[in-house]
Amino acid sequence: MENIRIGYIGLGGRGQGLLSSVVLAQNERVTAVCDVYEDRAEAGARLVEEAGQARPHVYTEYRDVIADPEVNVIIIATAWEYHAEIAVAAMRAGKAVAMEVGGSYTLEQCYELVKVYEETKTPFMFLENCCFGRREMMVLNMVEQGVLGEVVHCSGGYQHDLRDEISFGRENRHYRLRNYLSHNCDNYPTHDLGPIAKILKINRGNRMMTLSSTASRAAGLHAYILENKPEDEFLKSRQFAQGDVVTTVIKCADGSTIVLTLDTTLPRYYSRGFTVRGTKGMYEEATDSVFLDCAAHKAHDFDWRRTCSGNAAEYEEEYDHPLWKQFLIDGVQGGHDGMDWLEFQQFFKALREDAPMPVDVYDAASWMAVTALSEMSVARGGAVVDVPDFTGGKWHREILG
Amino acid sequence: MENIRIGYIGLGGRGQGLLSSVVLAQNERVTAVCDVYEDRAEAGARLVEEAGQARPHVYTEYRDVIADPEVNVIIIATAWEYHAEIAVAAMRAGKAVAMEVGGSYTLEQCYELVKVYEETKTPFMFLENCCFGRREMMVLNMVEQGVLGEVVHCSGGYQHDLRDEISFGRENRHYRLRNYLSHNCDNYPTHDLGPIAKILKINRGNRMMTLSSTASRAAGLHAYILENKPEDEFLKSRQFAQGDVVTTVIKCADGSTIVLTLDTTLPRYYSRGFTVRGTKGMYEEATDSVFLDCAAHKAHDFDWRRTCSGNAAEYEEEYDHPLWKQFLIDGVQGGHDGMDWLEFQQFFKALREDAPMPVDVYDAASWMAVTALSEMSVARGGAVVDVPDFTGGKWHREILG
Repeated sequence: MENIRIGYIGLGGRGQGLLSSVVLAQNERVTAVCDVYEDRAEAGARLVEEAGQARPHVYTEYRDVIADPEVNVIIIATAWEYHAEIAVAAMRAGKAVAMEVGGSYTLEQCYELVKVYEETKTPFMFLENCCFGRREMMVLNMVEQGVLGEVVHCSGGYQHDLRDEISFGRENRHYRLRNYLSHNCDNYPTHDLGPIAKILKINRGNRMMTLSSTASRAAGLHAYILENKPEDEFLKSRQFAQGDVVTTVIKCADGSTIVLTLDTTLPRYYSRGFTVRGTKGMYEEATDSVFLDCAAHKAHDFDWRRTCSGNAAEYEEEYDHPLWKQFLIDGVQGGHDGMDWLEFQQFFKALREDAPMPVDVYDAASWMAVTALSEMSVARGGAVVDVPDFTGGKWHREILG
Repeated sequence: MENIRIGYIGLGGRGQGLLSSVVLAQNERVTAVCDVYEDRAEAGARLVEEAGQARPHVYTEYRDVIADPEVNVIIIATAWEYHAEIAVAAMRAGKAVAMEVGGSYTLEQCYELVKVYEETKTPFMFLENCCFGRREMMVLNMVEQGVLGEVVHCSGGYQHDLRDEISFGRENRHYRLRNYLSHNCDNYPTHDLGPIAKILKINRGNRMMTLSSTASRAAGLHAYILENKPEDEFLKSRQFAQGDVVTTVIKCADGSTIVLTLDTTLPRYYSRGFTVRGTKGMYEEATDSVFLDCAAHKAHDFDWRRTCSGNAAEYEEEYDHPLWKQFLIDGVQGGHDGMDWLEFQQFFKALREDAPMPVDVYDAASWMAVTALSEMSVARGGAVVDVPDFTGGKWHREILG
């Protein structure tokens, strides 16, 4: 594709941030902006003008952006519930799509994404920025080089105290509030699952077979609101549907297991809890450490905390992913420690070169489906549910290498 | 009870260690020792003599120790599979019991322990030393003082690289090998579950309702044996039943959740992964840190890793458990950072004072049952199974305080 002209949909906090610090900073041309709230759409237009580009068309209805003949790429950063719907409409109109993350509350949306992509072959990228994290890519590289041996178990979480954002969701027009009042599931599985799925070759020689989710009771938000928003009679009297901690256990076709944790309504420090366990070694984000099956680590008086906690940086020189090595030379830019920058760089590169997207529609469908599946499982007391195969039985096409 | 005279059964590595460094070091009288292997029984007898006591009776059959009229207390440190059977026989003979930890492969054994205890009221203590760990007791104390708010989720694990012990199990006559060849479950749940159960008031106002376990494939031991024991044709050709990582999710009557991890056949550092999550704060063993819901921790530029990782020691002065405060004054002794010492001190104290045991038969039955339940659940692909109520419906007798 030449002559990229972006229609940018969704200009809340994340949308505005990505637009200015990544999309416009990478000198990509934005010819239309859209948000259901006029003031947000207008704020997006100003960001485009401030970047020295012509004033974009301003819309409040996403169908109008997709219909805009000037636009040939749609970037979606709206509330979760509209991602798939907008992406499907864009692909049907032949417009390339980059879609922000979030889960899907129905399996049908996930099937639809795949079906429309397969029918139209419109370029589609899922914006899972954590797949581009430095540590995530370093560990992926170590796994691909066999340093950790056979990988048999991974875990991760979206562990982020969002009590303030959620409690003030009406004032901030944030979609999380309505979702936490209504749903009980792992509503945001892809930051943790994405990098793990890449390591376990999900949809590329392996697949997720079954899933079980269990939610703790919901106590965190109520306690927070009593203390921090005592004047909000509406929220004070509400029972939140969303449990504080949701644990999801996934079993894969190759027998490996994945444990995901959604943990957003209790006090804690931010962590994605990324952990990879192989027959020769492990990486663990909580301690940012690499543990290898070597003599030093096996010694009986080996003091892990003193010797190795935080040692992952020592492996960067040898194992940083080639993409990151180049990124460090070029200079790391953009939000979230550079992940956003690298992600969009790879998206626009693939678009211009007509190359496969690094995070594709099968990734999107299978990762987003975890939300719908976990809701079913939680509602049934942790019952095991089947994970659909969105590749239509073709996930093992790469199993022979 | 006055005039304690111990019959000590099971003199493998753990048995001999506890006998010399704790039981004899506390000047308790041991009048009989027993092991199915004569050389081990003899080694136990020597330890008793070396401690300056008269030569004990030496047995190879546990029924003989129990029948020994001189013995009035039985300590059980045998292979897992014999714990409950010996304890039941001892209680029926009216001899007080201290029983080492391990899981139970059948629910019947757990029911039997409770039934025989209730019939005989023979003093029974479950030797879960981790309930006496300094951090575990400090966090229990913090919870009881309300520092962490309402506790809604806990996790823990028995995360201990035992590949060497298991692979050389025939040479070392160690029971783990036969169990890893035959069973697939959380075979050792009590080190992690015990301290959590105390915090969540299991059997004392709360109970475990349902459980789901999922096992990863078994790859760690095979890879280890190929590399470290290539001459063992028997083990090289075996498929181990035991998955490398078993994740167990438990839902409690009060809606709180517990996640347990058995993780003993892949390279890693030792950790029990003890984590407690409340509405006002958390403790996490991986980083040995306390995170409270205070202004400093909430600041947006707060750097957790730099500021708080490892900060739990700062809370010791205020929150160390009273038992530990005294222990530190008296001088910490015995194995496992003093846990073993404190545990036996409390056992003998309760025995002499005819007081309730700090870890009782209901604790033992419900914690050990996790092994049998997890085996059922793993075999059924992670299906949810019901956790029996070993209190006979009386767990809520303490719910009104």
